[in-house]
Amino acid sequence: MGGPHPTDEPQREGRLSRRGLLLGGGAAAGAGAALLIGADALVRAARPDATPEGEPAPHGRDVVPFHGPHQAGIHTPPQAHAKFVSVDLAKEVDAEGVRRLLVLLSDDAARLTQGEAALADSEPELALVPARLTVTFGFGRGLVERVAPDAVPSWLRPLPDFATDRLRSEWSGGDLLVQVCADDPVTVAHCARMLTKDVRAFGTVRWAQDGFRRARGSEAAGTTMRNLMGQVDGTVNLEPGTEDFDRLVWAGADAPAWLRGGTGVVVRRIAMDLEGWDRLDRPGREEAVGRRLSDGAPLTGEREHDEPDFAALTPLGFPRIAEYAHIRRARTENPDERIFRRAYNYDVPVAGTAGHDAGLLFVSYQADVERQFVPIQRRLDELDLLNEWVSPIGSAVFAVPPGCEEGGFVGEGLFGA
Amino acid sequence: MGGPHPTDEPQREGRLSRRGLLLGGGAAAGAGAALLIGADALVRAARPDATPEGEPAPHGRDVVPFHGPHQAGIHTPPQAHAKFVSVDLAKEVDAEGVRRLLVLLSDDAARLTQGEAALADSEPELALVPARLTVTFGFGRGLVERVAPDAVPSWLRPLPDFATDRLRSEWSGGDLLVQVCADDPVTVAHCARMLTKDVRAFGTVRWAQDGFRRARGSEAAGTTMRNLMGQVDGTVNLEPGTEDFDRLVWAGADAPAWLRGGTGVVVRRIAMDLEGWDRLDRPGREEAVGRRLSDGAPLTGEREHDEPDFAALTPLGFPRIAEYAHIRRARTENPDERIFRRAYNYDVPVAGTAGHDAGLLFVSYQADVERQFVPIQRRLDELDLLNEWVSPIGSAVFAVPPGCEEGGFVGEGLFGA
Repeated sequence: MGGPHPTDEPQREGRLSRRGLLLGGGAAAGAGAALLIGADALVRAARPDATPEGEPAPHGRDVVPFHGPHQAGIHTPPQAHAKFVSVDLAKEVDAEGVRRLLVLLSDDAARLTQGEAALADSEPELALVPARLTVTFGFGRGLVERVAPDAVPSWLRPLPDFATDRLRSEWSGGDLLVQVCADDPVTVAHCARMLTKDVRAFGTVRWAQDGFRRARGSEAAGTTMRNLMGQVDGTVNLEPGTEDFDRLVWAGADAPAWLRGGTGVVVRRIAMDLEGWDRLDRPGREEAVGRRLSDGAPLTGEREHDEPDFAALTPLGFPRIAEYAHIRRARTENPDERIFRRAYNYDVPVAGTAGHDAGLLFVSYQADVERQFVPIQRRLDELDLLNEWVSPIGSAVFAVPPGCEEGGFVGEGLFGA
Repeated sequence: MGGPHPTDEPQREGRLSRRGLLLGGGAAAGAGAALLIGADALVRAARPDATPEGEPAPHGRDVVPFHGPHQAGIHTPPQAHAKFVSVDLAKEVDAEGVRRLLVLLSDDAARLTQGEAALADSEPELALVPARLTVTFGFGRGLVERVAPDAVPSWLRPLPDFATDRLRSEWSGGDLLVQVCADDPVTVAHCARMLTKDVRAFGTVRWAQDGFRRARGSEAAGTTMRNLMGQVDGTVNLEPGTEDFDRLVWAGADAPAWLRGGTGVVVRRIAMDLEGWDRLDRPGREEAVGRRLSDGAPLTGEREHDEPDFAALTPLGFPRIAEYAHIRRARTENPDERIFRRAYNYDVPVAGTAGHDAGLLFVSYQADVERQFVPIQRRLDELDLLNEWVSPIGSAVFAVPPGCEEGGFVGEGLFGA
């Protein structure tokens, strides 16, 4: 049994009556939702790019299509801000409940991403700056099993245990992932709040994580991000639009029918020991990674995208790129063992002397988590000097359905599976 | 007794030796700081605006001067991101210790704000995108008393108790405020980390709070911010560069000599009951504030900056702008009871069913907190319908010294006081 639409919830009459009185006995609160729906038209007169100065908003009105063969937010050039919300479905939510939830979420995501208010948007004006907003839904095993237990991809389960894992349940797992990305943090906050309200009658938030990259326009387009350890992070990556990307990211004929055109996502919270990292000098840091800190070039090359020469030796006969260097361990001879990374930094304010609660929200997309992600992580787990300073403290795997067309909803294929 | 400079701290030989071994016995870790200092020159070759695409970085290299008669970050047009860090000084830090800390902090802030690495920057590449970075220091009573107990401004103390306060000590008070603002969240994280490391030998972080506004360039310049309740927030505000601003924000002849050209800052964490707010319809919300939600115009006007007509009546003879409306209660007849607001939103991810931990980091600057801020807050505390949905949960007051010239440090006047 799925819950009702949140706006159908009974109002708390006691408090409302009091407020109604204070407010001169105006419109009954129950009418609020309807008024809010109509408000979208009202607020269009007050678009933020129509301020007295007349200066056009350079990018706040940029939109990314919601509908299409693939969900947005995967091959979309990474926006500056992200929120990842993982939901535990309530026990009583059955297949029909899941369907209703996905219809609701898809409908609101379709509106919000296009700069329109959500159906029952309580702050419709905050929806007017989409700033390349994307919403991407992922399904945990628990969700798929409720709808189509025979169509669960074999890799849709917790990752195998890795020796370096320090996983905490409060950052791991979940039945449903809602990934919200935009170039504007207010947009992300508003959209996540609207979608979390949609979810409320169907489950609880298991975890929510905020991430950030460089602001839009603060660096040249296409600059590879740096993580908070200062490393250029993500140089070797599949490139959207290429044949390799299409083959390795989008699920194909060997996936359950409902997932074709979708993908799999791994979300891991990687805590950084920045205090320990501070005690390492630059040559030591560069040797740990196998790349120069200044520009991300491999220690055997001149530019960031130069191919590393893993056979090169120092004059003393040692490998130029050490055996335990991150880039050597992450590299594979198997061209199918590749993933598409789309990570974000996190930095949570903390009090006391503990220093920082910061790290990387590692996010990777791949058609088959077991065949593509796991072998890479196994090699890193066995021997990667960076393990000294990073600890995975959260981990979750979701199947990401393909996109939907107008009038459809994300995950609809699951119901014909 | 002030503590030593953090980079003088003894290194932990045990772990380092192990790493030194792993890293082929390269440079001793003790040399790390020196190497890092030299790294600034190295990384200049790899500026982020020199990427292969050749596309210029539109605003990441924008800088705000650090030196000058006033500290930056007050009259600076608000950047998209802010971090407020409040420090408790260690008991043994005396006047000389405070001086050393302020020299350190001013030096690093001067570098970082200009897009240069901090003196012992562990990730100098992250410093290359200043994105209008400003650092603003504020002194709590505890700091001023250690240096110049006879020169404490009378208003430099906790605010009087307000009936609506729900203050928590973990969000209140502190001896030293470090306010870090920039248009790029990575820049804010990096700068705050560097400055927090400077502080470490002198005290502990009492609280740290992150805030955000619209991203740079997502709205037209000069658009008044909206808070997470959807209200246009900050329409009536002093305007930097005007005579009123200069008179009411910058401390003048009646302030202690060390503070002239500085100001006072109030930082309050205002939690919003967004779930309760959701149950109120749009007319009710507009009546609570006294402004239209769509564009922030007063209920008696047509445009955001129209003067409200507090005498206007409805056909039934009620005030058009209610007695309990926020804008009526915030208004004063006394032209000296005005403040300069520079607020940020906050939104902390939470798990469970609790909804949200979101609100406003209310920040206001005024020459005299007692004479300017307190009367306004008293009126709002007595009768403001918004109090139904907002609760101050943190509060702190700091004296903000004037700026310094090159070679000087912020707060130097305190040592001649």
